[in-house]
Amino acid sequence: MKCDIEIAQQATMKPIAEIMEDFPITKEDWEPYGHYKAKLSDQLLEKLNDRKSGKIVLVTSINPTPAGEGKSTVTVGLGQAMNKLNKKTVIALREPSLGPSMGIKGGAAGGGYSQVLPMEDINLHFTGDIHAITAANNALSAFIDNHIFQGNALHIDPRKVGWKRVVDLNDRALREVIVGLGGPKKGVPREDGFMITVASEIMAILCLAKDMDDLKKRLSRIVFGYTYNDQPLTVKDLGMEGALTLLLKEAIKPNVVQTIEHTPAIIHGGPFANIAHGCNSVIATKLAAKLGDYVITEAGFGADLGAEKFLDIKTRAGEFEPDAVVLVATIRALKMHGGVAKEALETENLDALQAGMSNLQKHMETIEAYGLPYVIAINRFPTDTEAEIALIEKWCQQQGATVALTEVFAKGGEGGIQLAEEVVSTIETQEKHFKHMYDLQDSMEDKIAAIATNVYGAERVEYSAKAKEQMRQFAANGWDKLPICMAKTQYSLSDNPTLLGRPENFTITIREFSPSIGAGFIVALTGDVMTMPGLPKQPAALKMDVDENGNAVGLF
Amino acid sequence: MKCDIEIAQQATMKPIAEIMEDFPITKEDWEPYGHYKAKLSDQLLEKLNDRKSGKIVLVTSINPTPAGEGKSTVTVGLGQAMNKLNKKTVIALREPSLGPSMGIKGGAAGGGYSQVLPMEDINLHFTGDIHAITAANNALSAFIDNHIFQGNALHIDPRKVGWKRVVDLNDRALREVIVGLGGPKKGVPREDGFMITVASEIMAILCLAKDMDDLKKRLSRIVFGYTYNDQPLTVKDLGMEGALTLLLKEAIKPNVVQTIEHTPAIIHGGPFANIAHGCNSVIATKLAAKLGDYVITEAGFGADLGAEKFLDIKTRAGEFEPDAVVLVATIRALKMHGGVAKEALETENLDALQAGMSNLQKHMETIEAYGLPYVIAINRFPTDTEAEIALIEKWCQQQGATVALTEVFAKGGEGGIQLAEEVVSTIETQEKHFKHMYDLQDSMEDKIAAIATNVYGAERVEYSAKAKEQMRQFAANGWDKLPICMAKTQYSLSDNPTLLGRPENFTITIREFSPSIGAGFIVALTGDVMTMPGLPKQPAALKMDVDENGNAVGLF
Repeated sequence: MKCDIEIAQQATMKPIAEIMEDFPITKEDWEPYGHYKAKLSDQLLEKLNDRKSGKIVLVTSINPTPAGEGKSTVTVGLGQAMNKLNKKTVIALREPSLGPSMGIKGGAAGGGYSQVLPMEDINLHFTGDIHAITAANNALSAFIDNHIFQGNALHIDPRKVGWKRVVDLNDRALREVIVGLGGPKKGVPREDGFMITVASEIMAILCLAKDMDDLKKRLSRIVFGYTYNDQPLTVKDLGMEGALTLLLKEAIKPNVVQTIEHTPAIIHGGPFANIAHGCNSVIATKLAAKLGDYVITEAGFGADLGAEKFLDIKTRAGEFEPDAVVLVATIRALKMHGGVAKEALETENLDALQAGMSNLQKHMETIEAYGLPYVIAINRFPTDTEAEIALIEKWCQQQGATVALTEVFAKGGEGGIQLAEEVVSTIETQEKHFKHMYDLQDSMEDKIAAIATNVYGAERVEYSAKAKEQMRQFAANGWDKLPICMAKTQYSLSDNPTLLGRPENFTITIREFSPSIGAGFIVALTGDVMTMPGLPKQPAALKMDVDENGNAVGLF
Repeated sequence: MKCDIEIAQQATMKPIAEIMEDFPITKEDWEPYGHYKAKLSDQLLEKLNDRKSGKIVLVTSINPTPAGEGKSTVTVGLGQAMNKLNKKTVIALREPSLGPSMGIKGGAAGGGYSQVLPMEDINLHFTGDIHAITAANNALSAFIDNHIFQGNALHIDPRKVGWKRVVDLNDRALREVIVGLGGPKKGVPREDGFMITVASEIMAILCLAKDMDDLKKRLSRIVFGYTYNDQPLTVKDLGMEGALTLLLKEAIKPNVVQTIEHTPAIIHGGPFANIAHGCNSVIATKLAAKLGDYVITEAGFGADLGAEKFLDIKTRAGEFEPDAVVLVATIRALKMHGGVAKEALETENLDALQAGMSNLQKHMETIEAYGLPYVIAINRFPTDTEAEIALIEKWCQQQGATVALTEVFAKGGEGGIQLAEEVVSTIETQEKHFKHMYDLQDSMEDKIAAIATNVYGAERVEYSAKAKEQMRQFAANGWDKLPICMAKTQYSLSDNPTLLGRPENFTITIREFSPSIGAGFIVALTGDVMTMPGLPKQPAALKMDVDENGNAVGLF
């Protein structure tokens, strides 16, 4: 089979103006960015306020494994399949970060015949949103250091500046740095560090803001550090919320592209799924619902992280409810959860598959606990055997769960027809009784306990001494009524990445908290979270190039 | 009078598609970026190869003073005036950097009724070119540190990595940093520093490249550091030239916008005018000449820096010749060169004006030495008196020089008619005998002596011990046949910023050299050059905001 970029470059895109013609909007509501990308007005959502919203389908997955699940590919393929059924559907996805593209081969815009196009642009600079976030994030850093340098009227303690600089690259050497060296004319030395841009709180803010005004309010609430007396300091104290909003005034506009089968896709925002909430923007999802009768959208990592945050953080910020969930799994990944090593995945192994179903089952129970109807999507691989498929189908039948096989990578929308039919039927026939996993008025401990127990299946939660002290401080600062954003390994339901399947009787340990007051959540860190990836010895970028026609080469 | 952003926002732009209709190109040759910006294809120049090129007019100035000269404003106004005379004219300008916009109030896209629009976009992220350069520059840094971390097969000496990271911000605290801290998993500690993006060699490369292929060749030649044995190491040694080219494949496409009077303007690239050559891209200027019968373009700082580099570096890289020069001065600035303090500029002072003419005279002699016809443009201010204007006109008459008064700030193109008429007449009636100031085969000392003596009027050149040693090394590396890029204060013809007017009998001291082998020049540093500006105590950004309609507020 051809590789992703070959399929992408051989596809024929429609001019983006043609894609726009199918939307209930006028020429004033969007701007072209080249012939195949567009930005929608940031005021369009308000303009379409009275229009009925379409049904929102969240695509999530089992805990990811090195075997791959293809959640983005299923999201794109399902959107394409829905349109084949004449269900007017808009896809809503996250924007990929440049850093990982340069490091480890692997697309972030679907795959095979279920991709969004133009994939080179989407995986490189796209419409500049992430660069704008980098600029805004680092402008705040520059203003913090300048404030300290110019007399420090706010009494910023240079040792307590939590706000880090960012680059949208994998750059290990920037994880821990000392800035401000060189003597009195070059600043005040302090320890600092860089994150990858998608880990910036500004990315989370952009993705949770309802509109430009909400964006500015959230930016103004960012706590960037503390005074010598431990009083929190905000962007508003620095007077920078206007400038930061100005730097983001184009980035807040959602981007429209198309899939390989011309299904419209809104790609907007891409926060980390550990220290942030891992979902495309509220504006993108809500706008997709105004522009289509169905929205297919996804959240990062597995259902324990991405779906939980979609359902407890994003839906609250956006004041909306999803209508159904698609839970993606692959037989390969389920076998890994059942104890098979990656090298042995090609071999049929019914026992391991049966054992690995426990991981899927936990996520099914979680979605049921949220009161949402769901469909299981088994993303087929050529190595899957008939007996393995039969086992899954029988198991789902026994559970009373709906399952559909998909082959959207190889066949595009055609390979997702069964899934699309089940999704439509599920929404039409099953009632939803959506409820959040916790109440915002609950204490921080109670919220965390609800997630750990009901979503992860943990027995108990323990807190480090530091975390306990922080909970006292955060309550004193009035931050304890915010939702919790769990930073936990994506590979396991527990906080130990080696415990696959469905671990039991385990403890979740909260090491530390980090306040994202602008975004509007408290990050609970269960282990070391890497906010700046490193490059491998042979980075993917070494194979990248531009051919004589100006086309990208070697990009996946 | 209204401020720049008010004038800009009250102006009515034509859709960029209408501006494009006047060019001899097809729909395939350009892409829209919003309704008022476009990118031209990187292959358009080759496609128009057989088309006759228009006349190229370089706008330069006397040594800048705090009084202001308005070189960009005259460039824009002259372009507008030419079109009023029905001379089909295209303007070619540099892209402004975001950093200074956030720091000190002051537009970089003309002013008053001689501006390019949309000024908010141009002064913020524009079409993302500078962000792409930031990404490429920092990707190279990340790959250098990753190479060292992963075993250092190239034997990169971490103490001799000359390649710095960049941000497009004024951020004093990043001038000198230590990266790679945190132990063996986080890299190898070394001293590093950040420059503002426009100081990146990649910016200079983008501006000197003839096409995508030349861009890749120049990127591959970048010398980023040295081995432990002092052997130069290039991007090609790292194998990164393809990836860097890919990151720049959109940035190399020139941007088209319009002036307030709908004159087309190509805005592309903006390198520093001290450690780089300070001109918009070769592609922009040459393409402007294919699209118009006249090109009005500018170069950074005064004629001693910007024009010299335009004439000795840019024209060589682009293999073209200019047809005439406009030398901009203001009476205010000439009076400062004649010894008047900024506070006393409102008062008529004929003696000071007469004395200050010496600065203008030196630059006239320089342009004559290059064999180019020129027109002096006096950019009028309301405080200029009739007697002062009469003095200048008489003086120019005595010198046999053509002079025109302009009022393009207040009156737009209408205020530049006299200048436009003189420019057209000068090109039509005066012969040019263009020659470079030095031969590439000259030694480094001879090239520098030619610039210092003939362009600056220096008596002699002295070299530090380090510079002498570097000249030996550079010759051994085969770098001594490249043009010289002088890094000197812009405020004086000498290397002492306080010596205004026309200093005599002075020495130029070359402190150090810096090789920009990818760009294709050797930087000769005469003093401390600031490649990372700092923010003032009350940065301009504190007044910036977005209004309820999504429009920029407080941006100049």
